[in-house]
Amino acid sequence: MEGQPTLRLRIFDLNCWAIRYLSKRRQERVQLIGDTLRREGFDLVLLQEVWSEQDYSDLRVKLAGCYPFSHYFRSGVIGSGLCVFSRFPILDTLLYQYSLNGYPYMLQHGDWFCGKSVGVSVGATAPLLSLSLQLHAEYCREKDAYLPHRLVQAWELAQFIRHTSKAADVVLLGGDLNMHPEDVGIRLLRGWTGLRDAFAEAVRFEGCKNGCTLVPDNCFTDKSELLPFPLGIRIDYILYKAISSFTVKCEELKTTTGPALGTDIPFSDHEAVMATLHVQRQGQPVGATLGAADLVLADVVTEARTEVGVGLRAAQRQRYSSGRMAVLALLLLLLQAAAALGTLAGLGAEQPFPKLSFCLLAFLALGVLVLATGLHLFHTMEVKMLHSTEDQMWMALRALQERP
Amino acid sequence: MEGQPTLRLRIFDLNCWAIRYLSKRRQERVQLIGDTLRREGFDLVLLQEVWSEQDYSDLRVKLAGCYPFSHYFRSGVIGSGLCVFSRFPILDTLLYQYSLNGYPYMLQHGDWFCGKSVGVSVGATAPLLSLSLQLHAEYCREKDAYLPHRLVQAWELAQFIRHTSKAADVVLLGGDLNMHPEDVGIRLLRGWTGLRDAFAEAVRFEGCKNGCTLVPDNCFTDKSELLPFPLGIRIDYILYKAISSFTVKCEELKTTTGPALGTDIPFSDHEAVMATLHVQRQGQPVGATLGAADLVLADVVTEARTEVGVGLRAAQRQRYSSGRMAVLALLLLLLQAAAALGTLAGLGAEQPFPKLSFCLLAFLALGVLVLATGLHLFHTMEVKMLHSTEDQMWMALRALQERP
Repeated sequence: MEGQPTLRLRIFDLNCWAIRYLSKRRQERVQLIGDTLRREGFDLVLLQEVWSEQDYSDLRVKLAGCYPFSHYFRSGVIGSGLCVFSRFPILDTLLYQYSLNGYPYMLQHGDWFCGKSVGVSVGATAPLLSLSLQLHAEYCREKDAYLPHRLVQAWELAQFIRHTSKAADVVLLGGDLNMHPEDVGIRLLRGWTGLRDAFAEAVRFEGCKNGCTLVPDNCFTDKSELLPFPLGIRIDYILYKAISSFTVKCEELKTTTGPALGTDIPFSDHEAVMATLHVQRQGQPVGATLGAADLVLADVVTEARTEVGVGLRAAQRQRYSSGRMAVLALLLLLLQAAAALGTLAGLGAEQPFPKLSFCLLAFLALGVLVLATGLHLFHTMEVKMLHSTEDQMWMALRALQERP
Repeated sequence: MEGQPTLRLRIFDLNCWAIRYLSKRRQERVQLIGDTLRREGFDLVLLQEVWSEQDYSDLRVKLAGCYPFSHYFRSGVIGSGLCVFSRFPILDTLLYQYSLNGYPYMLQHGDWFCGKSVGVSVGATAPLLSLSLQLHAEYCREKDAYLPHRLVQAWELAQFIRHTSKAADVVLLGGDLNMHPEDVGIRLLRGWTGLRDAFAEAVRFEGCKNGCTLVPDNCFTDKSELLPFPLGIRIDYILYKAISSFTVKCEELKTTTGPALGTDIPFSDHEAVMATLHVQRQGQPVGATLGAADLVLADVVTEARTEVGVGLRAAQRQRYSSGRMAVLALLLLLLQAAAALGTLAGLGAEQPFPKLSFCLLAFLALGVLVLATGLHLFHTMEVKMLHSTEDQMWMALRALQERP
């Protein structure tokens, strides 16, 4: 950015909802997204939920002319679904996988299998750090069992940004955070990193009311989920901050509003977010922006820590009950082994030995043992990570309180 | 470090081999380590394989006076085993868990259960980034099935250091890398990060010959493993680099040599590594140290990428065979279901239905199905991560070749 007094960056962010065999009219939509991106010529495109590598390859071929640099982030069983297309060279990439991401046995909520991550690319509009990401979905707002996991993810993301962005000039984050603007997770992320919300800062805004990105008007959204929110909800964000001697201003923010130009379908069940940012070099390095808001931040960290604590106690209970189940199954198996040995030794020979039900019971006990042991191991890891996050948040609180 | 022309840092690094119920004379040794650390008063202590949180708590209580700041890194089922004690405040911590770390079904090689990680603490001898870590163990040097995983870890570690250390003045890494000094993984780590080996750079050295940290003289080491290496091997390292306008020099490096002072036992099955570093502010920021060695580095990355490719093909084969096994088990189950339905419908009623063996077979098939599906999912993740690392290495090679 040296020598360039002002840089205008146009950014496109979209959760593409491109799940093979499951997402409606997927190929048509991916083609549509590709056509629009080629026509509009953004500087940086951050996409989520591109689960099929074939879709990414098709996009890459189509966009090779205007976005010569791209990267697909692989992780988990299915993949992270994250990819980035850029008009500027991508110098380096890094993937950070969250330590907690739901439960493998919640097959209907496939989050665990995706290996949700944050994909970082270091751009050569040097140094620009851009992050594309998705956090754990919220399936039920009233009784959100995944809130502690999402908070751990928000915390890890915030820590990751703090540690990786120190030498960058500008940090850009685009993604589906699966959190409403006032949720504790997003306040934590913004407060702990100093990232600013493009929607709140934009000079001009155009698009769905309140910047919503999941709206009832979209033909692919689940209308029943949005009943409590007649205007829709805002869960896709573009956040940014300038680190060193730069300033970033959001000139314009737009969202799509339903069907794409000249078609009858929208890009996805989410609306796309598009920001135009002005990056300008300043004479003086910008000081730490946190200072004044420390008290508010301490409250946010405390609130998040309480929620993580709730999750920790739930995980401890689940670890305990799966452990107890495993022990009971093991005892049953031992009892059966003793009975079988007794029969072999000729005890109770006057009664016929019920081979079939004996075998059925043994297999059942074995099945329960394997399953319960697996669950116990999984919840042990969950307890460790929640505990570790609680500790880190405590350290952060202490640091906040000790600041002059 | 502002205003302090020279800072002398004394660092202690040890793989403590403190596994509950398994490690010999564990409590005695942990006590001994604590006593020594208290007496010697290092500036920074990096410990690995402290698997029991109780041991950490005991050490913390004992060392509270001379090392008021400490952190224990939790991860995986058992824990990362990493902890750090410091004379200077620890401002922040971060844990990065490697994406690949062995196989859960290799129970005899417990690596998977440890959630091996690198623990980062940001010290207030500001900014000093210190990393404590352990990589996947090498169980058989001749046929090292874990080499691709260890290389992925070395690569992720190198990438992590590059991204997190940009604003630090000094990076310090201490740990059990489970690699010999000339191994490709260590050349990759050193080449890609610019870290320097304290043993090679030290003005004075005192300790086991060649700086070995796993020596036949130690009463806890497995003598048969060390037969091809009569002097022992060096797998524990202290590496460092200065980033901004600082220089770091290693004044002295020491290793322990068997039994600790005044006792009949050593600290661990590994020897401890102790370095005295001189950190000095320079007038001019130090330029990139890589430049000249780019060609050598490209060779190292190519070599590592070849090994990762070998691992990728092995993982693909395993994914294929576990998938095939799952499909076969499913077919068997379907066949059995058809036979059972046929019997219920009265077909073949003239023959007695073999209930017991039928049940046994069904449970066997179900067991194989569950197991093979689990393996298939695991190897799918493995393929994704190996593939992703191969891609990243390719990007790095391209960047190296394009440098002027």
